[in-house]
Amino acid sequence: MAVNLPELLPPHPIAGIKIGTACAQIKQTEHDDLTLFEIPPNSTCAAVFTRNAFCAAPVTIAKQHLAAASPRYLLINSGNANAGTGERGLRDALACCETVAQLTGCATNEVLPFSTGVIGNPLPIEKMRAAIPTAKAALDANGWEKAAHAIMTTDTGPKGESIQSVIDGHTVTVTGIAKGAGMIKPDMATLLVFIATDATVETSVLQQCLTQAMEDSFHRITVDGDTSTNDSCVLIATGQNSLPPITNQQDCTTLCNLITHVCRQLAKKVVRDAEGATKFITIDIEQGHTKQECLDVAYTIAHSPLVKTAFFASDANWGRILAAVGRAGVKNLDIQAVKIYLGDVCIVENGGVAESYTEEQGQRKMSEPEIRIRVILGRAEKDNGHSTRLWTSDLSHDYVRINAEYRT
Amino acid sequence: MAVNLPELLPPHPIAGIKIGTACAQIKQTEHDDLTLFEIPPNSTCAAVFTRNAFCAAPVTIAKQHLAAASPRYLLINSGNANAGTGERGLRDALACCETVAQLTGCATNEVLPFSTGVIGNPLPIEKMRAAIPTAKAALDANGWEKAAHAIMTTDTGPKGESIQSVIDGHTVTVTGIAKGAGMIKPDMATLLVFIATDATVETSVLQQCLTQAMEDSFHRITVDGDTSTNDSCVLIATGQNSLPPITNQQDCTTLCNLITHVCRQLAKKVVRDAEGATKFITIDIEQGHTKQECLDVAYTIAHSPLVKTAFFASDANWGRILAAVGRAGVKNLDIQAVKIYLGDVCIVENGGVAESYTEEQGQRKMSEPEIRIRVILGRAEKDNGHSTRLWTSDLSHDYVRINAEYRT
Repeated sequence: MAVNLPELLPPHPIAGIKIGTACAQIKQTEHDDLTLFEIPPNSTCAAVFTRNAFCAAPVTIAKQHLAAASPRYLLINSGNANAGTGERGLRDALACCETVAQLTGCATNEVLPFSTGVIGNPLPIEKMRAAIPTAKAALDANGWEKAAHAIMTTDTGPKGESIQSVIDGHTVTVTGIAKGAGMIKPDMATLLVFIATDATVETSVLQQCLTQAMEDSFHRITVDGDTSTNDSCVLIATGQNSLPPITNQQDCTTLCNLITHVCRQLAKKVVRDAEGATKFITIDIEQGHTKQECLDVAYTIAHSPLVKTAFFASDANWGRILAAVGRAGVKNLDIQAVKIYLGDVCIVENGGVAESYTEEQGQRKMSEPEIRIRVILGRAEKDNGHSTRLWTSDLSHDYVRINAEYRT
Repeated sequence: MAVNLPELLPPHPIAGIKIGTACAQIKQTEHDDLTLFEIPPNSTCAAVFTRNAFCAAPVTIAKQHLAAASPRYLLINSGNANAGTGERGLRDALACCETVAQLTGCATNEVLPFSTGVIGNPLPIEKMRAAIPTAKAALDANGWEKAAHAIMTTDTGPKGESIQSVIDGHTVTVTGIAKGAGMIKPDMATLLVFIATDATVETSVLQQCLTQAMEDSFHRITVDGDTSTNDSCVLIATGQNSLPPITNQQDCTTLCNLITHVCRQLAKKVVRDAEGATKFITIDIEQGHTKQECLDVAYTIAHSPLVKTAFFASDANWGRILAAVGRAGVKNLDIQAVKIYLGDVCIVENGGVAESYTEEQGQRKMSEPEIRIRVILGRAEKDNGHSTRLWTSDLSHDYVRINAEYRT
């Protein structure tokens, strides 16, 4: 059901990073569901985590470990979120880290745990512990592709992105993978995302890069408005390419742009593979008075079940978009100044349907698998106001089916 | 598909109010779709309207007329919302009022127009004008039941409520009807609601009663979070019973309670008949630090597509409720203090699943057609904090089908 989700090409490896996967049969499947990342010494690491108050046990442990030490291993399981599991969940997450530490000789707090899957079931730690040696034995610089598969839950396909560029004559690589298809409205971070670069970057600069990259990527997508308890995004810089440490502003900006590119491509792939998605929708809000009101309008459209079902039906029921704009809470909105476009077709102006609009035009646009909604709020001069862009999916029978049957 | 929507019993008539219906074939149906209310002279009238910035043309006209005169007629059509119709929509709504005025001898601004149905199509005013004399000829004190049918759109059944009580030895009657099943998250008012009483009440007191009644009824329901462009609620007091004008605080409170009762019953009926509904869900939030945070938590649960599909599936996936509570934006929420119940079954405490909880208990509760979620935020002493209650429905295949096929 994914909308133009591109096939995963083998990502560029990142010097120093090795990845191994194994099948722990957490959900009684034959697929690999356990992933181990090995990170070389002297790497730097940035991370963002869910702001959901009921954050999962692995998120709590990962934050504590990250504050105390520089990570040497990431341990990721799919099939079980280890969320809503109280004290036991914390003990379980820690026990898995201990197993990795014993096996590899690192300290327990040099291991970060990540989990994704059903909320509320105890982690099957014996199964996980039994599979960890297999994952360790499989550690490989080319393990990215297998890992992109092993972290999937309701995803229909793996999501990866890899880019190389030249900074000051040295090749820099950024590679990332992500999983996620439902419970997607990232807040601070999203889903599970693992990105690495071979550049040498101080932790504070790396964290700044990641935070900035999130703003225009994972923080601008929504499938269903539900923020996960397990959202985590980790960015590692191994410092194993030939480029000297990045300190000057220009190189830093170049690297940040590469990271943002990878994040944005991954984020869009998550939406392309949204649960039940038949449409990939880009929402542009322009000429706003503030950034926040642009976001309010964009999310109100993106979360409206009525707008989303109209997209699913390829029905040019633009009145639902208009109603969503109207209820977004923009103060003193002058509806005479608002213009709404489907692609390049103007559907609303002067407070009502555009005179030039025909149902046939709307129908044609709505039938396309990729649709752009553009709302000009008219609260600032052109090129002078705030704007925002976000990506979302439609609401289909399959979304209901997938989520009604999720635990069966 | 409605959940225990009771059959409409013939409502008590309200002395002075006459109602007639007719078939204008606005949506090419054989059912009546035009309703005319006649209001006796010297009645008082209160009203609340949608806060959607793109409010419909009839809402704009009704507000203007209400500010200028006391209404003698209400003209309601279903099948077309006359919203997103710009200047033409305003002219059309006014033209319909003029037709009623000419036919009855009242002033044009003594007629309030109301429309509900598809957004964005021009009102078929010739059809409506042709049917208005039929509706006038049908005016009848017992017309409430027919009107409850004629104002329906995607509703599967008519919704009315009627109550009688004795104040100071005199019988007072309150009767109301409502329509609405989708695009339901009232803001200021909701859907189309018409209520009348035979009591004698000043306009300012009547408006206060209505505003208060809304707070615990229509403002506490949501189907899909989408606020309509056409929400309107009108409350008429004809002053034609034997009770002297209500002025003292005690009688006023008694009448307000009757009106609140009618509003609450109508609001719950709207949720019982929500598009595609298979479950009727009551959400109680208790021990909050502020009213607003209780509402934030309640609406986050009620709007979560994942919670709603779990209810549809009768799946005790309480992790989704927990995740919704966690992302509701409550500042410094102590998850150790939060308790979540399904009916009387405690599912979450001490930051995770309750020790006493069994999947079987949860399953049994989720299989019932009427379900109560109770979230104790633990941010105030018992009986000392803020609380709120709201009603919502589940998200089913039929919701998607109904809204995907709405215009076909």
